[in-house]
Amino acid sequence: MAESRVMNFGAGPSALPESVLEEAAKGLLNFNGTGIGIAEISHRSKEFTAYIAGVEAQIRQQLDVPPTHTILFLQGGGTAQFSAVVLNMLARYRLLHPELDDEEHVMDYVLTGSWSKLAAQEATRLANGARVNIAVDARSLSADGKSFDRIPPHDAYAFSDDPALIYYCENETVSGVEFSHDESAPESFPFELLPKDALLPLVADYSSSFMSRPIPRLADHAIIYAGAQKNLGPAGLTIAIVRQDCIVDVDAATRLGAVPVPTGLAYKTFADQKSMPNTPPVFAVYVTGLVLKRNAELGGVAYYEALNKRKQEKVYQALRVGEEKGLFRGHVKLGSGSWMNIVFEVLGDGAEARFLAGAEAQGMKGLKGHRSVGGIRVSLYNAITEEQTDKLVAYMQEYIEQAQPPLPSEVGPVQ
Amino acid sequence: MAESRVMNFGAGPSALPESVLEEAAKGLLNFNGTGIGIAEISHRSKEFTAYIAGVEAQIRQQLDVPPTHTILFLQGGGTAQFSAVVLNMLARYRLLHPELDDEEHVMDYVLTGSWSKLAAQEATRLANGARVNIAVDARSLSADGKSFDRIPPHDAYAFSDDPALIYYCENETVSGVEFSHDESAPESFPFELLPKDALLPLVADYSSSFMSRPIPRLADHAIIYAGAQKNLGPAGLTIAIVRQDCIVDVDAATRLGAVPVPTGLAYKTFADQKSMPNTPPVFAVYVTGLVLKRNAELGGVAYYEALNKRKQEKVYQALRVGEEKGLFRGHVKLGSGSWMNIVFEVLGDGAEARFLAGAEAQGMKGLKGHRSVGGIRVSLYNAITEEQTDKLVAYMQEYIEQAQPPLPSEVGPVQ
Repeated sequence: MAESRVMNFGAGPSALPESVLEEAAKGLLNFNGTGIGIAEISHRSKEFTAYIAGVEAQIRQQLDVPPTHTILFLQGGGTAQFSAVVLNMLARYRLLHPELDDEEHVMDYVLTGSWSKLAAQEATRLANGARVNIAVDARSLSADGKSFDRIPPHDAYAFSDDPALIYYCENETVSGVEFSHDESAPESFPFELLPKDALLPLVADYSSSFMSRPIPRLADHAIIYAGAQKNLGPAGLTIAIVRQDCIVDVDAATRLGAVPVPTGLAYKTFADQKSMPNTPPVFAVYVTGLVLKRNAELGGVAYYEALNKRKQEKVYQALRVGEEKGLFRGHVKLGSGSWMNIVFEVLGDGAEARFLAGAEAQGMKGLKGHRSVGGIRVSLYNAITEEQTDKLVAYMQEYIEQAQPPLPSEVGPVQ
Repeated sequence: MAESRVMNFGAGPSALPESVLEEAAKGLLNFNGTGIGIAEISHRSKEFTAYIAGVEAQIRQQLDVPPTHTILFLQGGGTAQFSAVVLNMLARYRLLHPELDDEEHVMDYVLTGSWSKLAAQEATRLANGARVNIAVDARSLSADGKSFDRIPPHDAYAFSDDPALIYYCENETVSGVEFSHDESAPESFPFELLPKDALLPLVADYSSSFMSRPIPRLADHAIIYAGAQKNLGPAGLTIAIVRQDCIVDVDAATRLGAVPVPTGLAYKTFADQKSMPNTPPVFAVYVTGLVLKRNAELGGVAYYEALNKRKQEKVYQALRVGEEKGLFRGHVKLGSGSWMNIVFEVLGDGAEARFLAGAEAQGMKGLKGHRSVGGIRVSLYNAITEEQTDKLVAYMQEYIEQAQPPLPSEVGPVQ
């Protein structure tokens, strides 16, 4: 089986470690010696309740989640969380400030890509009188005024005084923009500009970088959420790390005038019932547990931070060489480039198709960019090995050596 | 592997056909020859988009879903649908009747068990001024006034004149009550009492009986939904069959005063984007497709209807014999018993524990009743074979032959 597997550089759902898949295949027929497959066993069985508690403990340990925060297993992906963070944080704010009118509730959104943009659109849909403040829109800083191609410098942000939530997306998969974790870099998140509140209403979408490296200032966050389908497991599981003051009685807020919150979107529903008010996505939880166990054996997020740092450096280095030769053009400003998704153009008529076909011939798939941006996207999630990265880099170098620089007329304008 | 597997009579997640699990195990490493595992492949790949279209076509064909209805693949289980049906059907009603005040919006709920009761509670939470009318509460007909132990006779129902929705749960897994599909039986659903509307606002939770037999009057339903984890596949996938007039522009309804609907709960979000506004639960869709393919080979729902009819007849027959001997007591009134979940008590001090231990010793698991009802629950979903049913029945007969009837003092009162 292993020989026929290809290298999957897709942006998600994405590659999983082969050893995990082999173990999961066995678990499908017989989970931990129960004689029942993992997709068949009761989520209330002692075997599975012990298992999910172990998965939670692994996340807590590997990310150093403090006891102030509860870990929840949810469904519905980022889309459900776009709604949930608004509904829960507006309910919390209303309970904290019952004297304020709806118009005085403000939600701050940091726009650095299409996912944070969608999240802000959902906040507008559900605002019910509250105001959405765009703290910064990175597009306004781009050359054409419409591209998400950078993390804004700190002086570009304008946060509200007392927002109900402050939202950002740590890694934007579509355009390949990610915050730097070096707090001295201009591309870091501007934590120092936030309201000096003991309990910051800070919400972060970590869907595509969760478990790829440590989360800076995790304890300062109200909510961190992530779909499992990038670095952890199959699609269908969302993990949320929620500070306990944000697990609120949404019905009490409704009685004070907030919009009613669907049960399945209220964090309290899941916190009160250990993430199992109803059947959780058992198989996705199972595979996530296998991945976390393997992570722990390898050295946790510190291991992946070092590995992912090397992987992205190698690809960006090859990209830079191709840029110097006039063959590639990176989509993202230097310093804002994602470790997880590297987006670039291959210049010249038909060159992108030739590049993709050559990669496919060498067993490298999933490299086509998102339909809204085009070009090439190299996704380097945890399960992509350094060896696979080296093969891709060798292919990029080979392409650079063999290709002729395109004529100026073949090179489109900077996006 | 096969020899070590036990018989899983659990109420869900529940048994899956072994041949399907073996195929799924292979797909985890290599999906349809792509060289990429099913949990890793892009949901936008041509291979997966073709696959999910095939799953939809199978459901349409096997259940004879008319072109008036759209099939959607969702997440969040029944809990999410408890909310979604209310929000979408209230939005529809508001668009149909913008002149009516909130107080004139009525939702009719038929209560036959704990799942329909939870659904009605969610309707009350989200009503926002609309009224919830309990068309009938089956508990009021039970001996103790608080047990869900029967389907009410038709003259017990009181529907509203023009409700925004009429809700029922076809099979109640906890107490083992299910509507008869024989329209002449008093335990059938009272279709003849419904408003004489060309487009009935009829909503049915088919979570635990979907694909176990044909759905009567499917075309008359506004929404039929079902979690996959009983008869179809792993937990984490919900299938909804929605009549197109119920796929409404929820934002237009919000502008007329309806509460805003979270994007992930609006059917239109999924209908407009072929169930993929975001990443669907790919693995659960995959296994569901394998099960449906196998169903088609076996003869579809007609095959399962005949098989499931025989299976439940055999178990109820053994239960009746045990009742005559004073050893068992069925939870449900004759005629209202579910084909999927058969609930009964084993009478006598410690008798239930002995019955369960004896079953476990013969490789039969998952027979303990729901914590709220107690006793024994035999779940006979599609993947339970007739041979396994025969083994269980033989065990029940063996128990009946060997056990001593309990003393009257050991037998509790009728619940």
